[in-house]
Amino acid sequence: MEAGRALSPAQVDEYRTRGFLVEESVFPDNEMTALNAEAAKEFASGGERVTLEEGTDTVRGVHGCHLYSELFAELVRSPRLLPIAEQLLDDEVYVHQFKINAKRAFRGEVWEWHQDYTFWHREDGMPAPRALSAAIFLDEVTEFNGPLIFVPGGHRAGMVETDVEGDGWANTLTASLKYSIDIESMHRLVESHGMVAPKGPRGSVLWFDANIPHSSVPNISPRDRGLLLITYNSVRNKVDLSRATRPEWLSARDFTPLAAAHATSR
Amino acid sequence: MEAGRALSPAQVDEYRTRGFLVEESVFPDNEMTALNAEAAKEFASGGERVTLEEGTDTVRGVHGCHLYSELFAELVRSPRLLPIAEQLLDDEVYVHQFKINAKRAFRGEVWEWHQDYTFWHREDGMPAPRALSAAIFLDEVTEFNGPLIFVPGGHRAGMVETDVEGDGWANTLTASLKYSIDIESMHRLVESHGMVAPKGPRGSVLWFDANIPHSSVPNISPRDRGLLLITYNSVRNKVDLSRATRPEWLSARDFTPLAAAHATSR
Repeated sequence: MEAGRALSPAQVDEYRTRGFLVEESVFPDNEMTALNAEAAKEFASGGERVTLEEGTDTVRGVHGCHLYSELFAELVRSPRLLPIAEQLLDDEVYVHQFKINAKRAFRGEVWEWHQDYTFWHREDGMPAPRALSAAIFLDEVTEFNGPLIFVPGGHRAGMVETDVEGDGWANTLTASLKYSIDIESMHRLVESHGMVAPKGPRGSVLWFDANIPHSSVPNISPRDRGLLLITYNSVRNKVDLSRATRPEWLSARDFTPLAAAHATSR
Repeated sequence: MEAGRALSPAQVDEYRTRGFLVEESVFPDNEMTALNAEAAKEFASGGERVTLEEGTDTVRGVHGCHLYSELFAELVRSPRLLPIAEQLLDDEVYVHQFKINAKRAFRGEVWEWHQDYTFWHREDGMPAPRALSAAIFLDEVTEFNGPLIFVPGGHRAGMVETDVEGDGWANTLTASLKYSIDIESMHRLVESHGMVAPKGPRGSVLWFDANIPHSSVPNISPRDRGLLLITYNSVRNKVDLSRATRPEWLSARDFTPLAAAHATSR
Protein backbone atom coordinates (compact mmCIF):
# COMPACT_ATOMS: atom_id res chain seq x y z
CA MET A 1 0.00 0.00 0.00
CA GLU A 2 1.04 3.59 -0.55
CA ALA A 3 -1.03 5.25 2.17
CA GLY A 4 2.03 7.13 3.32
CA ARG A 5 3.01 8.45 -0.12
CA ALA A 6 4.30 12.02 0.16
CA LEU A 7 6.46 14.46 -1.77
CA SER A 8 9.89 15.29 -0.39
CA PRO A 9 10.48 18.80 0.98
CA ALA A 10 12.56 19.53 -2.15
CA GLN A 11 9.66 18.51 -4.39
CA VAL A 12 7.20 20.64 -2.43
CA ASP A 13 9.64 23.52 -2.71
CA GLU A 14 9.92 23.07 -6.44
CA TYR A 15 6.12 22.97 -6.74
CA ARG A 16 5.70 26.19 -4.74
CA THR A 17 8.46 28.01 -6.64
CA ARG A 18 7.68 26.96 -10.19
CA GLY A 19 3.93 26.27 -9.86
CA PHE A 20 4.22 22.74 -11.23
CA LEU A 21 6.00 19.44 -10.64
CA VAL A 22 6.38 16.26 -12.71
CA GLU A 23 6.51 12.81 -11.17
CA GLU A 24 7.55 10.27 -13.79
CA SER A 25 5.86 6.88 -14.18
CA VAL A 26 3.64 7.03 -11.09
CA PHE A 27 1.08 4.60 -12.54
CA PRO A 28 2.22 1.17 -13.77
CA ASP A 29 1.50 0.02 -17.29
CA ASN A 30 -1.40 -2.31 -16.49
CA GLU A 31 -3.28 0.46 -14.68
CA MET A 32 -2.67 2.83 -17.59
CA THR A 33 -4.09 0.30 -20.02
CA ALA A 34 -7.27 0.10 -17.93
CA LEU A 35 -7.52 3.91 -17.64
CA ASN A 36 -7.05 4.30 -21.40
CA ALA A 37 -9.77 1.74 -22.13
CA GLU A 38 -12.15 3.57 -19.78
CA ALA A 39 -11.24 6.92 -21.38
CA ALA A 40 -12.06 5.49 -24.82
CA LYS A 41 -15.51 4.49 -23.53
CA GLU A 42 -16.10 8.01 -22.23
CA PHE A 43 -15.01 9.58 -25.55
CA ALA A 44 -17.49 7.33 -27.36
CA SER A 45 -20.33 8.04 -24.94
CA GLY A 46 -21.67 11.10 -26.80
CA GLY A 47 -23.91 13.52 -24.91
CA GLU A 48 -23.34 16.96 -23.45
CA ARG A 49 -20.23 16.01 -21.46
CA VAL A 50 -18.30 15.39 -24.69
CA THR A 51 -16.76 18.42 -26.47
CA LEU A 52 -15.73 18.26 -30.16
CA GLU A 53 -12.94 20.08 -31.99
CA GLU A 54 -14.55 23.02 -33.78
CA GLY A 55 -16.31 22.14 -37.02
CA THR A 56 -15.35 18.44 -36.82
CA ASP A 57 -16.56 15.21 -35.23
CA THR A 58 -13.18 14.71 -33.51
CA VAL A 59 -13.50 14.48 -29.72
CA ARG A 60 -11.63 17.28 -27.93
CA GLY A 61 -12.46 16.17 -24.40
CA VAL A 62 -14.96 14.81 -21.93
CA HIS A 63 -15.85 16.08 -18.44
CA GLY A 64 -17.19 14.79 -15.16
CA CYS A 65 -16.29 11.13 -15.79
CA HIS A 66 -15.71 10.47 -12.08
CA LEU A 67 -19.44 10.96 -11.54
CA TYR A 68 -20.33 8.17 -13.99
CA SER A 69 -17.42 5.70 -14.06
CA GLU A 70 -16.51 3.53 -11.10
CA LEU A 71 -12.88 3.29 -12.22
CA PHE A 72 -12.52 7.06 -12.40
CA ALA A 73 -14.39 7.50 -9.08
CA GLU A 74 -11.75 5.23 -7.58
CA LEU A 75 -8.92 7.02 -9.39
CA VAL A 76 -9.63 10.40 -7.77
CA ARG A 77 -9.30 8.65 -4.38
CA SER A 78 -6.13 6.78 -5.41
CA PRO A 79 -3.41 6.60 -2.76
CA ARG A 80 -1.07 7.61 -5.57
CA LEU A 81 -2.83 10.97 -5.89
CA LEU A 82 -5.03 11.94 -2.97
CA PRO A 83 -2.30 12.17 -0.26
CA ILE A 84 -0.21 14.41 -2.52
CA ALA A 85 -3.16 16.70 -3.27
CA GLU A 86 -3.82 16.97 0.48
CA GLN A 87 -0.15 17.59 1.17
CA LEU A 88 0.17 20.39 -1.40
CA LEU A 89 -3.12 22.06 -0.41
CA ASP A 90 -2.50 21.37 3.28
CA ASP A 91 -6.12 20.39 3.80
CA GLU A 92 -8.76 17.80 3.07
CA VAL A 93 -9.90 18.03 -0.53
CA TYR A 94 -12.73 17.24 -2.94
CA VAL A 95 -12.80 17.05 -6.74
CA HIS A 96 -13.95 20.32 -8.30
CA GLN A 97 -13.50 19.21 -11.91
CA PHE A 98 -12.54 16.10 -13.87
CA LYS A 99 -11.70 16.09 -17.56
CA ILE A 100 -9.94 14.06 -20.19
CA ASN A 101 -8.37 15.98 -23.06
CA ALA A 102 -7.97 13.83 -26.15
CA LYS A 103 -5.47 15.87 -28.24
CA ARG A 104 -5.90 13.46 -31.13
CA ALA A 105 -3.05 12.69 -33.54
CA PHE A 106 -2.97 15.32 -36.34
CA ARG A 107 -6.25 16.79 -35.05
CA GLY A 108 -5.91 17.99 -31.45
CA GLU A 109 -6.16 21.79 -31.48
CA VAL A 110 -4.59 24.69 -29.61
CA TRP A 111 -5.44 25.74 -26.04
CA GLU A 112 -4.79 29.46 -25.70
CA TRP A 113 -2.79 30.90 -22.76
CA HIS A 114 -4.99 30.90 -19.66
CA GLN A 115 -5.12 30.37 -15.92
CA ASP A 116 -7.58 27.74 -14.74
CA TYR A 117 -8.46 29.79 -11.67
CA THR A 118 -9.99 32.54 -13.84
CA PHE A 119 -12.63 30.04 -14.98
CA TRP A 120 -13.18 28.52 -11.55
CA HIS A 121 -13.49 31.95 -9.96
CA ARG A 122 -15.62 33.74 -12.54
CA GLU A 123 -17.79 30.86 -13.73
CA ASP A 124 -17.95 28.59 -10.70
CA GLY A 125 -17.66 30.97 -7.72
CA MET A 126 -14.40 29.60 -6.28
CA PRO A 127 -13.28 32.13 -3.65
CA ALA A 128 -9.47 31.63 -3.68
CA PRO A 129 -6.82 29.82 -5.78
CA ARG A 130 -6.46 27.07 -3.16
CA ALA A 131 -6.86 24.36 -5.79
CA LEU A 132 -4.56 22.36 -8.07
CA SER A 133 -4.71 19.84 -10.86
CA ALA A 134 -3.11 16.46 -11.32
CA ALA A 135 -2.55 15.68 -15.02
CA ILE A 136 -2.05 11.99 -15.68
CA PHE A 137 -0.26 11.22 -18.97
CA LEU A 138 -2.49 8.69 -20.78
CA ASP A 139 0.17 8.62 -23.52
CA GLU A 140 3.82 9.56 -23.60
CA VAL A 141 4.10 13.35 -23.82
CA THR A 142 6.73 14.56 -26.29
CA GLU A 143 7.86 17.78 -27.92
CA PHE A 144 5.59 17.03 -30.87
CA ASN A 145 2.18 15.95 -29.54
CA GLY A 146 1.06 19.18 -27.93
CA PRO A 147 2.51 19.14 -24.40
CA LEU A 148 1.23 21.63 -21.84
CA ILE A 149 3.44 24.73 -21.82
CA PHE A 150 3.90 26.62 -18.53
CA VAL A 151 5.35 29.95 -17.45
CA PRO A 152 7.35 28.69 -14.46
CA GLY A 153 6.73 30.89 -11.42
CA GLY A 154 3.95 32.73 -13.27
CA HIS A 155 1.39 31.59 -10.68
CA ARG A 156 2.87 34.02 -8.18
CA ALA A 157 1.59 36.97 -10.24
CA GLY A 158 -1.95 36.04 -9.18
CA MET A 159 -4.87 36.30 -11.57
CA VAL A 160 -3.79 38.45 -14.54
CA GLU A 161 -5.70 40.47 -17.13
CA THR A 162 -7.74 38.52 -19.64
CA ASP A 163 -9.43 39.11 -22.93
CA VAL A 164 -13.05 38.05 -22.48
CA GLU A 165 -14.77 36.49 -25.48
CA GLY A 166 -18.48 35.74 -25.78
CA ASP A 167 -21.18 35.05 -23.21
CA GLY A 168 -22.37 31.92 -21.40
CA TRP A 169 -20.05 29.06 -20.50
CA ALA A 170 -19.94 26.95 -23.71
CA ASN A 171 -16.69 28.62 -24.80
CA THR A 172 -15.00 27.79 -21.51
CA LEU A 173 -14.29 24.43 -23.25
CA THR A 174 -13.41 25.40 -26.84
CA ALA A 175 -10.22 26.35 -28.73
CA SER A 176 -11.27 29.99 -28.72
CA LEU A 177 -11.34 30.34 -24.93
CA LYS A 178 -13.65 32.70 -23.07
CA TYR A 179 -10.84 33.93 -20.78
CA SER A 180 -7.43 34.04 -22.43
CA ILE A 181 -4.53 36.02 -21.00
CA ASP A 182 -4.03 39.28 -22.85
CA ILE A 183 -0.94 39.72 -25.05
CA GLU A 184 0.78 42.43 -23.00
CA SER A 185 0.54 40.34 -19.83
CA MET A 186 1.97 37.30 -21.65
CA HIS A 187 4.89 39.40 -22.92
CA ARG A 188 5.66 40.49 -19.37
CA LEU A 189 5.29 36.99 -17.91
CA VAL A 190 7.49 35.28 -20.51
CA GLU A 191 10.17 37.99 -20.41
CA SER A 192 10.46 37.45 -16.64
CA HIS A 193 10.02 33.69 -16.40
CA GLY A 194 10.40 31.96 -19.78
CA MET A 195 8.45 28.86 -20.78
CA VAL A 196 8.74 25.14 -20.04
CA ALA A 197 6.92 22.14 -21.56
CA PRO A 198 7.22 19.11 -19.22
CA LYS A 199 7.45 15.76 -21.03
CA GLY A 200 7.43 12.20 -19.75
CA PRO A 201 6.38 8.61 -20.23
CA ARG A 202 2.81 7.33 -20.00
CA GLY A 203 1.72 7.07 -16.37
CA SER A 204 3.55 10.22 -15.24
CA VAL A 205 1.72 12.80 -13.11
CA LEU A 206 2.08 16.55 -13.56
CA TRP A 207 0.87 18.65 -10.62
CA PHE A 208 0.07 22.29 -11.32
CA ASP A 209 -1.22 25.33 -9.51
CA ALA A 210 -4.66 26.92 -10.10
CA ASN A 211 -2.99 30.16 -11.20
CA ILE A 212 -0.13 28.94 -13.40
CA PRO A 213 -0.39 30.36 -16.93
CA HIS A 214 -0.43 27.55 -19.47
CA SER A 215 -1.30 26.72 -23.07
CA SER A 216 -0.73 24.01 -25.64
CA VAL A 217 -0.32 23.82 -29.41
CA PRO A 218 -1.92 21.32 -31.81
CA ASN A 219 -0.78 17.72 -31.90
CA ILE A 220 1.15 17.50 -35.19
CA SER A 221 2.27 13.92 -34.51
CA PRO A 222 0.72 10.61 -35.57
CA ARG A 223 0.20 9.67 -31.90
CA ASP A 224 -2.62 10.75 -29.57
CA ARG A 225 -1.75 12.73 -26.46
CA GLY A 226 -4.46 11.93 -23.93
CA LEU A 227 -4.33 13.82 -20.65
CA LEU A 228 -6.56 13.06 -17.67
CA LEU A 229 -6.98 16.09 -15.41
CA ILE A 230 -8.29 15.96 -11.85
CA THR A 231 -8.79 19.28 -10.08
CA TYR A 232 -8.66 19.03 -6.31
CA ASN A 233 -9.96 21.89 -4.21
CA SER A 234 -9.47 22.52 -0.49
CA VAL A 235 -12.69 21.84 1.45
CA ARG A 236 -12.25 25.24 3.11
CA ASN A 237 -12.34 26.82 -0.37
CA LYS A 238 -15.61 25.41 -1.64
CA VAL A 239 -17.39 27.33 -4.34
CA ASP A 240 -20.28 29.72 -3.80
CA LEU A 241 -23.11 27.82 -5.48
CA SER A 242 -25.19 30.98 -5.79
CA ARG A 243 -22.52 32.26 -8.24
CA ALA A 244 -22.00 28.99 -10.15
CA THR A 245 -22.96 29.15 -13.84
CA ARG A 246 -21.91 25.69 -15.01
CA PRO A 247 -23.51 22.24 -14.60
CA GLU A 248 -22.34 19.72 -12.02
CA TRP A 249 -20.22 17.78 -14.55
CA LEU A 250 -18.08 20.94 -14.89
CA SER A 251 -18.25 22.33 -11.37
CA ALA A 252 -18.84 20.04 -8.38
CA ARG A 253 -21.83 20.41 -6.04
CA ASP A 254 -20.61 17.78 -3.56
CA PHE A 255 -17.97 19.08 -1.15
CA THR A 256 -17.57 15.94 0.94
CA PRO A 257 -13.85 15.37 1.67
CA LEU A 258 -12.45 12.42 -0.25
CA ALA A 259 -11.25 9.35 1.61
CA ALA A 260 -8.43 7.32 0.07
CA ALA A 261 -9.66 4.35 -1.96
CA HIS A 262 -7.46 1.87 -0.13
CA ALA A 263 -9.42 2.53 3.09
CA THR A 264 -12.72 1.59 1.46
CA SER A 265 -12.90 -0.20 -1.90
CA ARG A 266 -9.53 -1.98 -1.69
CA MET B 1 35.55 37.16 -48.44
CA GLU B 2 33.97 33.77 -48.31
CA ALA B 3 34.10 32.85 -51.97
CA GLY B 4 35.52 29.49 -51.03
CA ARG B 5 32.89 28.66 -48.42
CA ALA B 6 31.99 24.96 -48.53
CA LEU B 7 30.47 22.31 -46.29
CA SER B 8 32.75 19.60 -44.91
CA PRO B 9 32.31 16.04 -46.20
CA ALA B 10 30.74 15.15 -42.83
CA GLN B 11 28.19 17.96 -43.22
CA VAL B 12 27.36 16.91 -46.77
CA ASP B 13 26.95 13.37 -45.52
CA GLU B 14 24.61 14.50 -42.76
CA TYR B 15 22.57 16.49 -45.27
CA ARG B 16 22.25 13.53 -47.65
CA THR B 17 21.36 11.09 -44.85
CA ARG B 18 18.92 13.21 -42.86
CA GLY B 19 17.64 15.51 -45.59
CA PHE B 20 18.52 18.67 -43.66
CA LEU B 21 21.45 20.43 -42.00
CA VAL B 22 21.70 23.39 -39.62
CA GLU B 23 24.56 25.87 -39.72
CA GLU B 24 24.41 28.12 -36.68
CA SER B 25 24.96 31.88 -36.84
CA VAL B 26 26.02 32.11 -40.49
CA PHE B 27 24.90 35.75 -40.81
CA PRO B 28 26.24 38.37 -38.38
CA ASP B 29 23.92 40.51 -36.32
CA ASN B 30 24.21 43.69 -38.39
CA GLU B 31 23.24 41.86 -41.57
CA MET B 32 20.28 40.25 -39.79
CA THR B 33 19.07 43.65 -38.63
CA ALA B 34 19.10 44.86 -42.23
CA LEU B 35 17.32 41.73 -43.49
CA ASN B 36 14.65 42.06 -40.81
CA ALA B 37 14.04 45.71 -41.67
CA GLU B 38 13.66 44.79 -45.36
CA ALA B 39 11.32 41.89 -44.45
CA ALA B 40 9.14 44.30 -42.45
CA LYS B 41 8.86 46.54 -45.53
CA GLU B 42 7.78 43.55 -47.63
CA PHE B 43 5.16 42.47 -45.06
CA ALA B 44 3.74 46.01 -45.11
CA SER B 45 3.72 46.25 -48.91
CA GLY B 46 0.24 44.76 -49.40
CA GLY B 47 -0.68 43.38 -52.79
CA GLU B 48 -1.02 39.88 -54.16
CA ARG B 49 2.41 38.66 -52.99
CA VAL B 50 1.31 39.01 -49.34
CA THR B 51 -0.67 36.12 -47.79
CA LEU B 52 -2.74 36.65 -44.61
CA GLU B 53 -3.57 34.18 -41.82
CA GLU B 54 -7.11 32.93 -42.49
CA GLY B 55 -9.87 35.28 -41.42
CA THR B 56 -7.42 37.85 -40.01
CA ASP B 57 -5.31 40.79 -41.15
CA THR B 58 -2.17 39.16 -39.73
CA VAL B 59 0.52 38.62 -42.38
CA ARG B 60 1.36 34.94 -42.89
CA GLY B 61 4.04 35.42 -45.51
CA VAL B 62 5.24 37.22 -48.62
CA HIS B 63 6.69 35.76 -51.82
CA GLY B 64 9.02 36.71 -54.63
CA CYS B 65 10.79 39.49 -52.71
CA HIS B 66 14.07 38.90 -54.56
CA LEU B 67 12.38 40.18 -57.72
CA TYR B 68 11.55 43.52 -56.10
CA SER B 69 14.12 44.22 -53.38
CA GLU B 70 17.79 44.90 -54.14
CA LEU B 71 18.88 43.60 -50.75
CA PHE B 72 17.08 40.27 -51.27
CA ALA B 73 18.33 40.04 -54.88
CA GLU B 74 21.83 40.32 -53.43
CA LEU B 75 21.05 37.86 -50.63
CA VAL B 76 20.21 34.98 -52.99
CA ARG B 77 23.68 35.50 -54.56
CA SER B 78 25.42 35.77 -51.17
CA PRO B 79 28.76 33.95 -50.89
CA ARG B 80 27.40 32.63 -47.61
CA LEU B 81 24.64 30.74 -49.47
CA LEU B 82 25.19 30.31 -53.18
CA PRO B 83 28.37 28.15 -53.05
CA ILE B 84 26.68 25.77 -50.59
CA ALA B 85 23.57 25.45 -52.76
CA GLU B 86 25.81 24.68 -55.75
CA GLN B 87 27.81 22.19 -53.70
CA LEU B 88 24.75 20.30 -52.46
CA LEU B 89 23.01 20.27 -55.86
CA ASP B 90 26.32 19.68 -57.66
CA ASP B 91 25.38 22.14 -60.37
CA GLU B 92 24.83 25.78 -61.17
CA VAL B 93 21.55 26.99 -59.70
CA TYR B 94 18.82 29.61 -59.98
CA VAL B 95 16.13 30.69 -57.51
CA HIS B 96 12.85 28.88 -58.08
CA GLN B 97 11.01 30.44 -55.14
CA PHE B 98 11.60 33.05 -52.45
CA LYS B 99 9.37 33.52 -49.43
CA ILE B 100 9.35 34.99 -45.97
CA ASN B 101 7.11 33.29 -43.42
CA ALA B 102 6.14 35.62 -40.60
CA LYS B 103 4.87 33.18 -37.91
CA ARG B 104 3.74 36.09 -35.77
CA ALA B 105 3.78 35.91 -31.97
CA PHE B 106 0.51 34.33 -30.71
CA ARG B 107 -0.90 34.38 -34.26
CA GLY B 108 1.28 32.37 -36.64
CA GLU B 109 -0.70 29.30 -37.67
CA VAL B 110 0.00 25.66 -38.46
CA TRP B 111 1.64 24.34 -41.65
CA GLU B 112 0.40 20.81 -42.28
CA TRP B 113 2.79 17.94 -43.11
CA HIS B 114 3.93 18.29 -46.70
CA GLN B 115 6.81 17.91 -49.12
CA ASP B 116 7.73 21.04 -51.04
CA TYR B 117 8.49 19.03 -54.15
CA THR B 118 4.84 17.99 -54.48
CA PHE B 119 3.95 21.65 -55.06
CA TRP B 120 6.89 22.38 -57.34
CA HIS B 121 6.20 19.26 -59.40
CA ARG B 122 2.42 19.42 -59.68
CA GLU B 123 1.89 23.18 -59.76
CA ASP B 124 5.10 24.45 -61.31
CA GLY B 125 6.21 21.62 -63.61
CA MET B 126 9.54 20.83 -61.91
CA PRO B 127 10.73 17.52 -63.40
CA ALA B 128 12.86 16.09 -60.53
CA PRO B 129 13.54 16.84 -56.84
CA ARG B 130 16.95 18.33 -57.63
CA ALA B 131 16.17 21.42 -55.56
CA LEU B 132 16.65 22.51 -51.96
CA SER B 133 15.80 25.37 -49.65
CA ALA B 134 17.92 27.54 -47.40
CA ALA B 135 15.92 28.79 -44.41
CA ILE B 136 17.51 31.80 -42.75
CA PHE B 137 16.38 32.36 -39.13
CA LEU B 138 15.22 36.00 -38.96
CA ASP B 139 14.58 35.40 -35.25
CA GLU B 140 15.87 32.86 -32.77
CA VAL B 141 14.00 29.58 -33.33
CA THR B 142 12.90 27.87 -30.11
CA GLU B 143 10.70 24.99 -28.99
CA PHE B 144 7.84 27.45 -28.52
CA ASN B 145 7.66 29.69 -31.57
CA GLY B 146 6.68 27.14 -34.19
CA PRO B 147 9.96 25.63 -35.47
CA LEU B 148 9.96 23.55 -38.63
CA ILE B 149 9.54 19.86 -37.79
CA PHE B 150 11.23 17.28 -40.04
CA VAL B 151 11.08 13.52 -40.48
CA PRO B 152 14.85 12.89 -40.71
CA GLY B 153 15.65 10.64 -43.66
CA GLY B 154 12.05 10.87 -44.86
CA HIS B 155 13.20 12.48 -48.13
CA ARG B 156 14.54 9.11 -49.28
CA ALA B 157 10.98 7.75 -49.54
CA GLY B 158 10.47 10.02 -52.56
CA MET B 159 7.17 11.78 -53.16
CA VAL B 160 4.52 10.15 -50.95
CA GLU B 161 0.73 9.99 -51.08
CA THR B 162 -1.14 13.23 -50.46
CA ASP B 163 -4.63 14.34 -49.66
CA VAL B 164 -5.58 16.89 -52.30
CA GLU B 165 -7.83 19.74 -51.21
CA GLY B 166 -9.50 22.22 -53.54
CA ASP B 167 -8.65 23.54 -57.00
CA GLY B 168 -6.40 26.31 -58.27
CA TRP B 169 -3.21 27.40 -56.55
CA ALA B 170 -4.42 29.85 -53.86
CA ASN B 171 -4.42 27.15 -51.21
CA THR B 172 -0.82 26.23 -51.95
CA LEU B 173 -0.07 29.10 -49.51
CA THR B 174 -2.70 28.72 -46.76
CA ALA B 175 -2.95 26.81 -43.45
CA SER B 176 -5.24 24.24 -45.07
CA LEU B 177 -2.73 23.10 -47.69
CA LYS B 178 -3.68 21.81 -51.12
CA TYR B 179 -1.24 18.87 -50.87
CA SER B 180 -0.81 17.49 -47.36
CA ILE B 181 0.70 14.08 -46.69
CA ASP B 182 -1.99 11.52 -45.89
CA ILE B 183 -2.26 10.17 -42.34
CA GLU B 184 -1.25 6.57 -43.07
CA SER B 185 1.94 7.69 -44.82
CA MET B 186 2.81 9.97 -41.90
CA HIS B 187 2.31 7.10 -39.46
CA ARG B 188 4.72 4.97 -41.48
CA LEU B 189 7.29 7.74 -41.88
CA VAL B 190 7.34 8.71 -38.21
CA GLU B 191 7.42 5.11 -36.98
CA SER B 192 10.54 4.54 -39.11
CA HIS B 193 12.33 7.86 -38.70
CA GLY B 194 10.92 9.92 -35.80
CA MET B 195 10.75 13.71 -35.83
CA VAL B 196 13.25 16.52 -35.22
CA ALA B 197 12.74 20.27 -34.84
CA PRO B 198 16.03 22.13 -35.43
CA LYS B 199 16.48 25.26 -33.31
CA GLY B 200 19.12 27.94 -33.32
CA PRO B 201 20.01 31.59 -32.92
CA ARG B 202 19.06 34.37 -35.34
CA GLY B 203 21.26 34.26 -38.43
CA SER B 204 21.43 30.45 -38.59
CA VAL B 205 20.81 28.68 -41.90
CA LEU B 206 18.82 25.46 -42.23
CA TRP B 207 19.33 23.60 -45.51
CA PHE B 208 16.64 21.09 -46.49
CA ASP B 209 15.81 18.74 -49.32
CA ALA B 210 12.91 19.21 -51.77
CA ASN B 211 11.36 15.94 -50.61
CA ILE B 212 11.79 16.08 -46.83
CA PRO B 213 8.42 15.85 -45.05
CA HIS B 214 7.95 18.85 -42.75
CA SER B 215 5.33 20.79 -40.84
CA SER B 216 5.08 23.41 -38.11
CA VAL B 217 2.67 24.27 -35.32
CA PRO B 218 1.38 27.71 -34.32
CA ASN B 219 3.62 30.20 -32.59
CA ILE B 220 2.30 30.22 -29.00
CA SER B 221 5.10 32.50 -27.79
CA PRO B 222 5.19 36.28 -27.44
CA ARG B 223 8.03 36.49 -29.99
CA ASP B 224 7.80 36.40 -33.78
CA ARG B 225 9.50 33.59 -35.68
CA GLY B 226 10.39 34.99 -39.08
CA LEU B 227 11.90 32.56 -41.58
CA LEU B 228 13.32 33.57 -44.94
CA LEU B 229 13.26 30.71 -47.44
CA ILE B 230 15.22 30.61 -50.67
CA THR B 231 14.63 27.65 -52.96
CA TYR B 232 17.53 26.92 -55.27
CA ASN B 233 16.99 24.66 -58.26
CA SER B 234 19.58 23.00 -60.48
CA VAL B 235 19.75 24.70 -63.90
CA ARG B 236 19.50 21.22 -65.46
CA ASN B 237 16.18 20.76 -63.64
CA LYS B 238 14.34 23.84 -64.82
CA VAL B 239 10.58 23.74 -64.78
CA ASP B 240 8.37 23.02 -67.79
CA LEU B 241 6.70 26.39 -68.27
CA SER B 242 3.90 24.84 -70.29
CA ARG B 243 2.83 23.04 -67.10
CA ALA B 244 3.30 25.96 -64.68
CA THR B 245 0.11 27.18 -63.00
CA ARG B 246 1.48 29.83 -60.67
CA PRO B 247 2.65 33.40 -61.28
CA GLU B 248 6.34 34.36 -61.53
CA TRP B 249 6.51 35.56 -57.90
CA LEU B 250 5.77 31.93 -56.88
CA SER B 251 7.54 30.03 -59.63
CA ALA B 252 10.52 31.50 -61.48
CA ARG B 253 10.53 32.12 -65.23
CA ASP B 254 14.22 33.15 -65.37
CA PHE B 255 16.61 30.18 -65.33
CA THR B 256 19.86 32.13 -65.69
CA PRO B 257 22.49 30.64 -63.38
CA LEU B 258 23.25 32.89 -60.41
CA ALA B 259 26.68 34.46 -60.04
CA ALA B 260 27.96 35.15 -56.54
CA ALA B 261 27.35 38.71 -55.38
CA HIS B 262 30.97 39.30 -54.38
CA ALA B 263 32.04 38.90 -58.02
CA THR B 264 29.78 41.71 -59.15
CA SER B 265 28.17 44.09 -56.69
CA ARG B 266 30.80 43.85 -53.95
